[in-house]
Amino acid sequence: MRPMPRRSAAAVADTRAAVTKTAVDRASVDGLEGLTIGALAADAEMRKSSVFSLFGSKQDLQEAALDAAVEQFIEEVWGPVAGERPGLPRLLALCDSWLSYHEREVLPGGCFLTTATVEYDARPGPLRDAVARTMKRWFRVLEREVEVAIESGELAAGTRAGDVAFQLNALAAAASYGFQLSRDREVFEVARRSMRGVLTPG
Amino acid sequence: MRPMPRRSAAAVADTRAAVTKTAVDRASVDGLEGLTIGALAADAEMRKSSVFSLFGSKQDLQEAALDAAVEQFIEEVWGPVAGERPGLPRLLALCDSWLSYHEREVLPGGCFLTTATVEYDARPGPLRDAVARTMKRWFRVLEREVEVAIESGELAAGTRAGDVAFQLNALAAAASYGFQLSRDREVFEVARRSMRGVLTPG
Repeated sequence: MRPMPRRSAAAVADTRAAVTKTAVDRASVDGLEGLTIGALAADAEMRKSSVFSLFGSKQDLQEAALDAAVEQFIEEVWGPVAGERPGLPRLLALCDSWLSYHEREVLPGGCFLTTATVEYDARPGPLRDAVARTMKRWFRVLEREVEVAIESGELAAGTRAGDVAFQLNALAAAASYGFQLSRDREVFEVARRSMRGVLTPG
Repeated sequence: MRPMPRRSAAAVADTRAAVTKTAVDRASVDGLEGLTIGALAADAEMRKSSVFSLFGSKQDLQEAALDAAVEQFIEEVWGPVAGERPGLPRLLALCDSWLSYHEREVLPGGCFLTTATVEYDARPGPLRDAVARTMKRWFRVLEREVEVAIESGELAAGTRAGDVAFQLNALAAAASYGFQLSRDREVFEVARRSMRGVLTPG
C-alpha cells in the first residue's frame, strides 16, 4: 500500500476554514457549548479523527468558531458601511446593515454573539473572556462613532456615547432573537424604528 | 425489613417544588438544555431515581423549571408594582423592579427567559413554543400598560405600544446579560437611564 500523499498546507487551511464555517452555523443554533467534534464530523461528512487533527481540542474548535463569526459579522455588517461618512450617516447605515444581516439569516440561528454572551455570561473560563473582549471591542467601535456624531453636532451635546452604544446593541440583539422566536418579520420594522429613534430623537 | 412509609402528597409536592427551584437556578447558568436529571440529583443530594419519580422525563423537568421561573419573575418584578397607578407611574416603577431583580441576582445566571429565548429560538419543539407563548404574554402586559399611559395622555398620542414594549424588554434583557458578562454594575445605570428615556423622551 502506498502512503497517502501529504496534503498541502493550503489544502489543510481550506478544509479547516470550511469546517469552521459549518461550526459557526451549527453553534448559532445549538450554542458553542453544544459544539462537538463528533457532530461536526457528521455535518462535514468527515471522520472524527480528521476533524480532531484540524483543531486539536473542543476549546480550539470553539475559539475558531468565535473568531470566524466575528470576522463574518465585521465583513457583513461593518463592511458595507465602512465607506460612509463617519458619524450619524454611518451610524444610520449601520443600523440597516446590522438588521439586514439578521433578517437575511446569514446564520441559521441568529446573532452568534448574543447566543455566546447568554451562554457564557455566567460561566467563567477562556470562552467567556473571549466573548467579553469581543463585546467590549464592538461597544468601543459604536461609542467612537457616536462621539464623532456628537463632535460634529449631529447628536446633541449631552448625549452619552456609552448609553447609545448599549441601546443600539440591545435593540439589534432583540430583533434577532425576537425574530428567531416569532418568525414575524415585523420585528425588524419595530427594531429599525427603535434604533432610528435612538439616533434621531423627537 | 419493613416497607418505607408512603410519603404524603404534600411532602412530595414540597420536594418537587424544592427540586424545581434548584433546576431554575441551574438552568439560569447552564440553560434548560443543559438540565439533566443526573446533575440535578447531585445538586439536590438525591438519588437519580427519586428525581426521576418526581418529573418522569427531562422535558417535564424543563417545563416545570420554565413555569417556576415565570412565576418567580411575576412575583418579584410585577408583584411589587401591582398596586401602583396603572399607566406611566406603574411603568416607571416596573423598570426599577425589573432591573433590581437582575441586579440582586435572584437567579445566579441572570434573566431566565432571555437565556431560554436564545437557547430555543431556532430549535422547534414544545419548549420553544412554551417560551414563545410566555414572551407573547409578557409583551401583551407591557403593551396594555403603555396603552393606558397613552389614553391618559401620559405618553404622546402617536406612541406605538408595541415599539415601547419591544424597547423596554430589549433594554432590560441587555442589562442582565451585559452585567453577567462584565460584572460591572454601571450597566444598570445605563439601562435605567435608557428605559426612562423611552418612557419620558426629551
